[in-house]
Amino acid sequence: MATIEAGKKLAAYKAVDDHITADCKVIGIGSGSTVVYVVERILQKPELANLVYIPTSFQSKLLIIEGGLTLGSIEQYPDIDVTIDGADEVDPQLNAIKGGGACQFQEKVVAEAAKKFVIVADYRKKSTKLGVEWTKGVPIEVVPMAYKLVMRSLESKLTVQQPLESKLRMAINKAGPVVTDNGNFVIDAHFGAIERPACLLKELKGLTGVYEVGLFCNMAQIAYFGEADGNVSTLV
Amino acid sequence: MATIEAGKKLAAYKAVDDHITADCKVIGIGSGSTVVYVVERILQKPELANLVYIPTSFQSKLLIIEGGLTLGSIEQYPDIDVTIDGADEVDPQLNAIKGGGACQFQEKVVAEAAKKFVIVADYRKKSTKLGVEWTKGVPIEVVPMAYKLVMRSLESKLTVQQPLESKLRMAINKAGPVVTDNGNFVIDAHFGAIERPACLLKELKGLTGVYEVGLFCNMAQIAYFGEADGNVSTLV
Repeated sequence: MATIEAGKKLAAYKAVDDHITADCKVIGIGSGSTVVYVVERILQKPELANLVYIPTSFQSKLLIIEGGLTLGSIEQYPDIDVTIDGADEVDPQLNAIKGGGACQFQEKVVAEAAKKFVIVADYRKKSTKLGVEWTKGVPIEVVPMAYKLVMRSLESKLTVQQPLESKLRMAINKAGPVVTDNGNFVIDAHFGAIERPACLLKELKGLTGVYEVGLFCNMAQIAYFGEADGNVSTLV
Repeated sequence: MATIEAGKKLAAYKAVDDHITADCKVIGIGSGSTVVYVVERILQKPELANLVYIPTSFQSKLLIIEGGLTLGSIEQYPDIDVTIDGADEVDPQLNAIKGGGACQFQEKVVAEAAKKFVIVADYRKKSTKLGVEWTKGVPIEVVPMAYKLVMRSLESKLTVQQPLESKLRMAINKAGPVVTDNGNFVIDAHFGAIERPACLLKELKGLTGVYEVGLFCNMAQIAYFGEADGNVSTLV
């Protein structure tokens, strides 16, 4: 197994072992390639078969259904014990960029509804500062009719930090822009190193037409990173 | 004609006369009962027949189509000359509560895209402080799957001002909650007198799951109020 995949798997397995127990009732399941290993580990533990699992995307819903686990909705179970999710980049304060997979809205709702939010990732996602390792930009989910207004606001209304470049994310295997599970578009805004992520998040979410922002600030309690040497490091 | 209706009509007619001329290219058309008179006045002026009109709701789109005017989309015409819209309450600084008709999102996009935003209303909408005259609360448009999370956040996360009560807006002529033109729900949050509307708006829009807020701060350049005595007063 390639080192990166091994790292994802190690981090995911250890996070499940440390945080998901038969005492839990409701678990939030993130999205993305690392979360596949989260569900894989859950399925290895018969005592976790009776918990309720809340998805953060269509991909995540399929993982739950195909694993034969009990699928729940956030409307029915607004109190989640633990949510485990991946991230595209994590800084030393546990702020994260998420949304490479365009699932940032449901991911944030399910993370925020959880008593404990746990990040799992391979070693490449650990960063001294957001925007340094992850160079694809901050994903900003926007309502389609307002995307030009948001593009314009990104150029003129931010005071914390200006984007160097903002691009509407285009689809592959579909003509035109990526459409999210919520029917929206995604603008990737490139800021370079992000100095004050929580302040930037506030300004970005405040723009009219912005649905959600792939900056997760002051949300995670712990992150697990699968290292290249086969160990798992944590950040709290 | 009842005094209130007369007031709406007077304000709407004067706003059209003062701000929409043949020099304009693109006009934003608000939503609600007062805007019916805005379109009525536009249709009385042949020189305004060749402008492009951008709607703020399905109701507004129908007014444009049924009047035989040229309907445009905000994607095609992101630069609007003037938007005229109603309001539920306007304070002396021209901050407004909007969204009694649940159209606050498109209304805000079209207002923000305009060089000039003009409010028209009858005299009952003039207020010394938001929340004093309009007692149905601040409309908060929320993504359906997140409405319980937003309800909880309204109770625990606001620092500027706490709501006295928040209610999911229920539909009439439809079972369950009102669904907006964008497929969302509306929570009406009752704050009593709102002391710092711009700060409250920032905090509300910042909550995960909030799509748009019916507080319009620092947006209008002028408001026209049809008075009970048959005059029109303005606020700038």
